[in-house]
Amino acid sequence: MAELGTYEMDHTIAYYECDRTGAASLSMLVAMIIMASEKQNEELGVDVDQAMKFGGTWVIINYEADFMGDLPHEGAHIKVGTNIQAYNQFFVLRKFWVKDAKGQTVATFVGTFVYMDLKARKLTKIPAEIMKPYQVQAVKRVPHVKAPQSLDVSDQWQSKQYQVRYFDIDYNGHVNNARYFDWMLDPLGGEFLMDHHITKMMVKFEHEVRPSAVATSKLYVENGPDDSVVSHHKIFVGAELCTEADFIWQKINKSE
Amino acid sequence: MAELGTYEMDHTIAYYECDRTGAASLSMLVAMIIMASEKQNEELGVDVDQAMKFGGTWVIINYEADFMGDLPHEGAHIKVGTNIQAYNQFFVLRKFWVKDAKGQTVATFVGTFVYMDLKARKLTKIPAEIMKPYQVQAVKRVPHVKAPQSLDVSDQWQSKQYQVRYFDIDYNGHVNNARYFDWMLDPLGGEFLMDHHITKMMVKFEHEVRPSAVATSKLYVENGPDDSVVSHHKIFVGAELCTEADFIWQKINKSE
Repeated sequence: MAELGTYEMDHTIAYYECDRTGAASLSMLVAMIIMASEKQNEELGVDVDQAMKFGGTWVIINYEADFMGDLPHEGAHIKVGTNIQAYNQFFVLRKFWVKDAKGQTVATFVGTFVYMDLKARKLTKIPAEIMKPYQVQAVKRVPHVKAPQSLDVSDQWQSKQYQVRYFDIDYNGHVNNARYFDWMLDPLGGEFLMDHHITKMMVKFEHEVRPSAVATSKLYVENGPDDSVVSHHKIFVGAELCTEADFIWQKINKSE
Repeated sequence: MAELGTYEMDHTIAYYECDRTGAASLSMLVAMIIMASEKQNEELGVDVDQAMKFGGTWVIINYEADFMGDLPHEGAHIKVGTNIQAYNQFFVLRKFWVKDAKGQTVATFVGTFVYMDLKARKLTKIPAEIMKPYQVQAVKRVPHVKAPQSLDVSDQWQSKQYQVRYFDIDYNGHVNNARYFDWMLDPLGGEFLMDHHITKMMVKFEHEVRPSAVATSKLYVENGPDDSVVSHHKIFVGAELCTEADFIWQKINKSE
């Protein structure tokens, strides 16, 4: 551990964590950073089972992420780290990072966790006992994570449906939210995804997706500043908005 | 390494390699054993790039597997091993195993590899140079791997469609065949999958599935001997049979 309250784990990228370009897929990177936060909780004696003793579980409600270069490829020895930046009665703001084998940071994420009462299925105060081992002082206001633009859906948006599959469901009985990234990116198509790299994303999770639901992934792409491309995404189940996100992309210069 | 020609790698099961019961999913176990064979090739100096110098690549055409108990759960420290059992000019028979933290074998697989010419996209003689580092004598006949029963599809079969997604495609530009296991098992449904554990499987890969194809997963379930249940599976793209498989299951005794 680099410093008090910081957790880093070593990981070697497996080929099955990569997309067809050979780089780690976004859904897998998101799964890895969540694993880092779970391992930190475990190390501090406040794992999922401990959190559950107070009737609830951690739920992440948003991400803002920046990507500084090539995402790690198959076989790369990376470090995935996290620490708590701030917390109050209802929110924990976590930072995450991914470092390549040379120690260069290739991705950073901030995300807000809430504590959800599993019976009432709504937010409740975070039990002080599960924050204590972090030895971090609570604050009044937790900084906001930058939200996606939340454009209205128009006729110009494309749409693709995803039937939830058995293997999308995790131990909590809902679709693992790393899966949403596949649903959001897949409709962009192979040509776009192989020709662009992601530089930034803002994601907001609104509602869980349940087993046997059909998710509709809606998408609108426009040009952004400085030769960037911005893709806007919304995932619905019926009329209910489950997730929205903006991704910012740069065209890959193939002659480089 | 335990003995000449045997390769074992350590692996810790990540939560995102598990299904909703908390056990490693079959598609992930298959991905892991393939990784073990690739790492052994790498260690012996005959990795994918070396194999490619002769114009082709390894393709697996079948599996027969036995499962002896609980599949490893999240956080389990397992060993995944492989060795070459026999080979001739056209076929390599590999054995694979998965051992739990206590060293108990929980799964064994045998599978046959062929060497596919990438230009002609058909089988060709295995280059002697990429087998040499294994220091195994070629044989005349490589033992057969037990095939699935290959029943005819009737009206009693169920059917479910899977649109190939961008993230199903691997570095070779085709659907990674670990993905087929999700397509075959998903139509069995959550109730069946949570109530049964797999004891045996026979799988035969006939044709690759290409990007943007729609795969149809067909399924017929019947009772087998000794209270077992047998599920028969075929994956088609249009009229072309891509994969067939039989899985043998036992009902989980929940009172245990």
